[in-house]
Amino acid sequence: MSELSFVLNKAHDVSFKNQAPDPFTSDHDVRVHITSTGICGSDVHYWKQGRIGDFVVEKPMILGHESSGVVVEVAKNVKSLKPGDRVAVEPGRVCRICDYCRAGHYNLCPHMEFAATPPYDGTLRTTYVTTEDFCTKLPDNISLDEAAIFEPLSVAIHCWQRAQLTFGKRVLVFGCGPVGLLLMAVAKAYGAIEIVAADVSATRTQFAEKYIGAKAYVCPKKNESESVAAYAEKCRTAIKYEHGYFEFTADATGVDTCIHTAVLLLKPGGTFIQAGNGKPVVDFPINHLVNNELSVIGSFRYSAGCYEQALKLVSTGKVPLKPLISHTFAFKEAEEAYKTTADPSSGAIKVIIHGTDY
Amino acid sequence: MSELSFVLNKAHDVSFKNQAPDPFTSDHDVRVHITSTGICGSDVHYWKQGRIGDFVVEKPMILGHESSGVVVEVAKNVKSLKPGDRVAVEPGRVCRICDYCRAGHYNLCPHMEFAATPPYDGTLRTTYVTTEDFCTKLPDNISLDEAAIFEPLSVAIHCWQRAQLTFGKRVLVFGCGPVGLLLMAVAKAYGAIEIVAADVSATRTQFAEKYIGAKAYVCPKKNESESVAAYAEKCRTAIKYEHGYFEFTADATGVDTCIHTAVLLLKPGGTFIQAGNGKPVVDFPINHLVNNELSVIGSFRYSAGCYEQALKLVSTGKVPLKPLISHTFAFKEAEEAYKTTADPSSGAIKVIIHGTDY
Amino acid sequence: MSELSFVLNKAHDVSFKNQAPDPFTSDHDVRVHITSTGICGSDVHYWKQGRIGDFVVEKPMILGHESSGVVVEVAKNVKSLKPGDRVAVEPGRVCRICDYCRAGHYNLCPHMEFAATPPYDGTLRTTYVTTEDFCTKLPDNISLDEAAIFEPLSVAIHCWQRAQLTFGKRVLVFGCGPVGLLLMAVAKAYGAIEIVAADVSATRTQFAEKYIGAKAYVCPKKNESESVAAYAEKCRTAIKYEHGYFEFTADATGVDTCIHTAVLLLKPGGTFIQAGNGKPVVDFPINHLVNNELSVIGSFRYSAGCYEQALKLVSTGKVPLKPLISHTFAFKEAEEAYKTTADPSSGAIKVIIHGTDY
Amino acid sequence: MSELSFVLNKAHDVSFKNQAPDPFTSDHDVRVHITSTGICGSDVHYWKQGRIGDFVVEKPMILGHESSGVVVEVAKNVKSLKPGDRVAVEPGRVCRICDYCRAGHYNLCPHMEFAATPPYDGTLRTTYVTTEDFCTKLPDNISLDEAAIFEPLSVAIHCWQRAQLTFGKRVLVFGCGPVGLLLMAVAKAYGAIEIVAADVSATRTQFAEKYIGAKAYVCPKKNESESVAAYAEKCRTAIKYEHGYFEFTADATGVDTCIHTAVLLLKPGGTFIQAGNGKPVVDFPINHLVNNELSVIGSFRYSAGCYEQALKLVSTGKVPLKPLISHTFAFKEAEEAYKTTADPSSGAIKVIIHGTDY
Ligand SMILES: NC(=O)c1ccc[n+]([C@@H]2O[C@H](COP(=O)([O-])OP(=O)(O)OC[C@H]3O[C@@H](n4cnc5c(N)ncnc54)[C@H](O)[C@@H]3O)[C@@H](O)[C@H]2O)c1
Ligand SMILES: NC(=O)c1ccc[n+]([C@@H]2O[C@H](COP(=O)([O-])OP(=O)(O)OC[C@H]3O[C@@H](n4cnc5c(N)ncnc54)[C@H](O)[C@@H]3O)[C@@H](O)[C@H]2O)c1
Ligand SMILES: NC(=O)c1ccc[n+]([C@@H]2O[C@H](COP(=O)([O-])OP(=O)(O)OC[C@H]3O[C@@H](n4cnc5c(N)ncnc54)[C@H](O)[C@@H]3O)[C@@H](O)[C@H]2O)c1
Ligand SMILES: NC(=O)c1ccc[n+]([C@@H]2O[C@H](COP(=O)([O-])OP(=O)(O)OC[C@H]3O[C@@H](n4cnc5c(N)ncnc54)[C@H](O)[C@@H]3O)[C@@H](O)[C@H]2O)c1
Ligand SMILES: [Zn+2]
Ligand SMILES: [Zn+2]
Ligand SMILES: [Zn+2]
Ligand SMILES: [Zn+2]
Repeated sequence: MSELSFVLNKAHDVSFKNQAPDPFTSDHDVRVHITSTGICGSDVHYWKQGRIGDFVVEKPMILGHESSGVVVEVAKNVKSLKPGDRVAVEPGRVCRICDYCRAGHYNLCPHMEFAATPPYDGTLRTTYVTTEDFCTKLPDNISLDEAAIFEPLSVAIHCWQRAQLTFGKRVLVFGCGPVGLLLMAVAKAYGAIEIVAADVSATRTQFAEKYIGAKAYVCPKKNESESVAAYAEKCRTAIKYEHGYFEFTADATGVDTCIHTAVLLLKPGGTFIQAGNGKPVVDFPINHLVNNELSVIGSFRYSAGCYEQALKLVSTGKVPLKPLISHTFAFKEAEEAYKTTADPSSGAIKVIIHGTDY
Repeated sequence: MSELSFVLNKAHDVSFKNQAPDPFTSDHDVRVHITSTGICGSDVHYWKQGRIGDFVVEKPMILGHESSGVVVEVAKNVKSLKPGDRVAVEPGRVCRICDYCRAGHYNLCPHMEFAATPPYDGTLRTTYVTTEDFCTKLPDNISLDEAAIFEPLSVAIHCWQRAQLTFGKRVLVFGCGPVGLLLMAVAKAYGAIEIVAADVSATRTQFAEKYIGAKAYVCPKKNESESVAAYAEKCRTAIKYEHGYFEFTADATGVDTCIHTAVLLLKPGGTFIQAGNGKPVVDFPINHLVNNELSVIGSFRYSAGCYEQALKLVSTGKVPLKPLISHTFAFKEAEEAYKTTADPSSGAIKVIIHGTDY
Repeated sequence: MSELSFVLNKAHDVSFKNQAPDPFTSDHDVRVHITSTGICGSDVHYWKQGRIGDFVVEKPMILGHESSGVVVEVAKNVKSLKPGDRVAVEPGRVCRICDYCRAGHYNLCPHMEFAATPPYDGTLRTTYVTTEDFCTKLPDNISLDEAAIFEPLSVAIHCWQRAQLTFGKRVLVFGCGPVGLLLMAVAKAYGAIEIVAADVSATRTQFAEKYIGAKAYVCPKKNESESVAAYAEKCRTAIKYEHGYFEFTADATGVDTCIHTAVLLLKPGGTFIQAGNGKPVVDFPINHLVNNELSVIGSFRYSAGCYEQALKLVSTGKVPLKPLISHTFAFKEAEEAYKTTADPSSGAIKVIIHGTDY
Repeated sequence: MSELSFVLNKAHDVSFKNQAPDPFTSDHDVRVHITSTGICGSDVHYWKQGRIGDFVVEKPMILGHESSGVVVEVAKNVKSLKPGDRVAVEPGRVCRICDYCRAGHYNLCPHMEFAATPPYDGTLRTTYVTTEDFCTKLPDNISLDEAAIFEPLSVAIHCWQRAQLTFGKRVLVFGCGPVGLLLMAVAKAYGAIEIVAADVSATRTQFAEKYIGAKAYVCPKKNESESVAAYAEKCRTAIKYEHGYFEFTADATGVDTCIHTAVLLLKPGGTFIQAGNGKPVVDFPINHLVNNELSVIGSFRYSAGCYEQALKLVSTGKVPLKPLISHTFAFKEAEEAYKTTADPSSGAIKVIIHGTDY
């Protein structure tokens, strides 16, 4: 049997391809017919630039890594799943034997084969093969489209778990894209008692207000001559005036001014979590870090337990995912879906591509 | 009775002053006749510049905050000490009722009156009044000169407690001044199995080799045109080649290149601790932080339990302090002591000023 | 001015007494006119037995420790409060200088003078003097009667903070008295996704069902000949059959069979929290603890931050306190209030005694 | 090729057996020629009783699980090892896909196939097959006999990691068998500043004194009529008189009186770690747990990183293992080795059985 996939050949050059399904390589493997795939900023980045930092698309690569689907085949030792089960799919395969995998931090596995990170193929194909424990079985009250968003939701969960966010804290998040919005939603579920949402786009901060009851801060435009520190100082003053300082701040933009401001707005002893990717090097208020004894925590993808936590957050209604789905496309319209995501005027939040026939 | 003190009037202008002893303000107060006071970089900084950042010497201020001495008087509710007891003195008075004090983080108390931080007087005087719990009683095997060094030792202890350093880790420390050396000594006592000491001064790294068995890395000179990132990349390559990556790195220089390099040299999941003070804003490798899921921890002074830990480290011989004492001066030679500390050619590590007559 | 108090002379012998108001002993003291005081099991215990374990009522002692009121006077350094402020009162005074106090664990202070624990007087009096940081200022949406319940609520908060309860866990609580109910309410606020409430009284488990949506388990009567282990094994089977195992279990009864069963019902790696007081020595399934790598955590009163957390939980509506107030009495009816609390047929959950005139 | 093994047929009935070597079942498997195997209390228990609790020897089972050896064959994906490498062998195979395995707690894996725990065969055979990550490569300064003791050493390491033992604590350990002694040795390496060793056997406590500089407490005989609580109270008084209270206590006997005493001797806020196995149910001082806010932690075997930590502790000389090896036997003398271990008069601490020819 041949199956279909959506392939990035090189920057701005995509096509559909037929190919053989992947074989099983472990007795715990399952084959999932992919039905819903969200598009993430990194997908768009590869599509536009053909690279992210050192990761370069050097040969055609199947796109997509935020997926869900239906199990269609299971290898002989699989106990937890059977054909017909609806699942969220954790992208990537890990080695399971390195020190990181053994200790439960498989996101740091040096042998990680992450979907749609070159040279590894992604999930925008008829079926994707993974191990049973990288699938999260869905209850009836969660749709496959929602389940595709478990991936960025797990990113947000991992952030707050790294930061050890507990009930009763005040939180500031820079960036009201999917990751930032999910950071806010998870923070609320974990008991944040006030959430301030900052973004350069007022449309986006308004979305955050409606989505999760956040208070909005629209970042002013930085003029060229202004230093990052001076701009950040200005935003600090404005936000502090309205909302005071925060026990936790987070960045989901990757932009230097946001990072700088977010660190300045921490209370002594506070924690800043960095999720966004952007310029490799930024102007950073290091003295502020020492004098206020701050913690600055990087968070990379997600690890053991995050998808399980996503399931709990969504199935209990604590984190709503439906409002984030702004557009859906058929598989054959995949390129259109990418264009929509990349177009700021589209109002896209999360764009979902549906599956091929099966 | 009148007592003597060593006062900074303004930058480069010091004098001896007579004054009345401070009164008791709490039933738990004790009066300590100060016998030994170490000089720290910040003291020298005030002496030379009359300010550190926003802290400006606007009226004459008694210098000194690394002190030890002998109890000479106790207030009526003091149970833990009696006249004649030899003690290390924790500088500063805290409010004890703010949320930080209540939770054991009094180093973050907004009402902290820290010795020799303007406008609060320091400890270079005949007697210093503090509460009994800010004194650590010394056993016979610890000298008063050593006890003066409990202060920077506590700084180092607090750093590693913040970083949760445990047995078996590989550690890199930038800076071989007193703080850096004590970071290395405490790391060794806490079970670090390899310690690399980096400094721009070969004399200093050699001291670290001899003091604690560290492996030395002498930082090359950065040429003007080189970016911080490029310089750091170069040092990263060199250190990694010799020593690999580290679970923990620390900065005790405050210098941007050191901070940058130290962060680059962490293993995925590693922790960087910032002790040094320097430029308020530095070029920081933020993408590296995210992709390797690092933690960057600021550490400010010390808090509950640090002096007690210092006592254990020194009294059990795990952290030797005597080798750090390079010079001692009589009280009347205090200015000379400052000059010696400030003179790089003096070979000074820790300079101690002895007490006034009593 | 003379004020009124409600005094336990010896077991079953109470009376009202006139006395002088307590003087201020610190510049941070405030005088609170007590308006609402909840009765707790330990108060009743002293009233009935004249002792709890080693704590014996040897001279007349004012009862009461769950109180709230209105500030009527402040000492000269008080900044956070002013006359007229409505506050929840944390009972007891601590030394602030022992290692426990300094580290933020003042509940373990060996010098604790806890209200209504002999020989220290309680709060059932016209005014109670304490330091400003032991008062929690109330917003308008919290009544003084509710604020009296901050005390047992803080007990519950401290339990889950000790246990590090986070979002998404399944929780079993033995005991549906005020402490057990508040453990459930806080667990829910902290994100527990299923809560099972066990009690020997069906009325009480029904209350838990209504109060917090818990699932009820009514403990069977244990017959004399049955061992604690055999009884617990039986309950384990029954509860497991209905609800499976739990990541967290807690005891708020102090009864051996409950403790034993609660430990048996933990998942491997789970945590049991002990709040209840009862027999000093119980039959404990220690092998189960080792083979399943469990943690058993004692929790005693509350410490820095618990009242602040109570304020957040109640003011945000996450923990409702009004449903717990089953009876209120005037100050002059205090003995009646005690009788009501002690009478199982009264249906009392939390009984509140109002204040004297002021 | 046929290989030899040492088999327990049923209680007190052992024999040597020839059999085929185990096949590889994963591409990460390695075959280790076993050269040294320590005997542990549980092995002796199976040999004598044919069972431990619910684990019953129902068919012949190869004994042994504390082993080391030389790699003789590697499967095709093995990168970290090659034939000729000397390794410590972590016994047991885990599923790698359950929540416990994924989170790094594979000691709690419900699918664990632990060596010499019925029905799974042990390591007393010519070759044992395991995955590469369950082997720890030895440097030249560690002998294969020492490496066999990595297993109980890992038990001790896991205990203190569970308890989060840090520098400067006072520690009391009940039991001076191999596990207790290793608990003391690891505690010392982790910075314990005083270690008290308790055992009913003075020979054993003397061994602890010599081995690790512990202070000895010889437990008195308990007379029949005495309750566990009364006996424990008596020991508490005696130990407290000599040594005060402890931040950490541990049990490596499994005996009720030891557990009870160890809990009573904790300082408020202290932690007790339970390693020993014994009676399933014991008399436990639960009120003491609450009033002093203690933590009681079960520790079961070891998990990710423990063998790696063992390697560091032994290769740096922090934990000496040679003194623990009291006897060595040839493979053919295996039954003699068991008898020696079981005979209290033999003076055996750790008995090692060497390998078959290869
Ligand atoms: N750490 C991880 O594991 C991980 C995983 C996924 C995504 N990410 C990163 O998280 C970030 C957010 O992802 P997303 O999908 O939400 O992206 P997105 O592009 O949808 O959202 C980014 C938001 O930042 C706002 N923004 C841009 N410049 C700004 C400025 N100067 N000031 C204020 N706001 C500004 C944009 O208006 C936008 O709303 C990205 O950098 C992405 O690479 C990280
Ligand atoms: N966080 C805190 O609570 C705390 C407390 C005390 C001191 N400090 C800070 O710690 C730092 C160290 O204090 P110290 O007393 O050891 O100071 P120090 O001046 O004696 O030592 C600093 C060392 O850094 C080295 N150095 C300078 N520039 C360098 C470069 N470009 N590359 C490499 N090495 C370089 C110097 O040669 C010197 O050995 C200072 O910044 C001080 O302000 C912080
Ligand atoms: N740890 C602390 O700091 C702290 C503080 C306050 C109270 N407490 C203790 O918490 C416990 C609960 O306090 P409370 O005010 O809720 O008491 P309570 O008496 O109102 O509630 C106890 C509940 O346990 C139930 N119960 C009694 N025997 C039982 C059995 N055999 N099986 C099942 N359920 C049984 C009762 O029916 C009752 O509902 C008490 O032991 C109290 O001393 C501890
Ligand atoms: N938790 C785990 O993962 C794990 C792993 C291995 C072993 N264990 C257990 O650890 C315990 C110790 O193992 P070991 O190999 O050192 O055993 P061992 O039999 O060599 O040592 C036990 C010691 O306890 C002493 N003892 C016995 N009764 C005593 C009493 N009444 N009072 C004081 N001391 C007494 C004995 O004299 C002996 O020295 C055993 O119970 C074993 O089952 C647990
Ligand atoms: Zn891996
Ligand atoms: Zn304070
Ligand atoms: Zn105290
Ligand atoms: Zn498993």
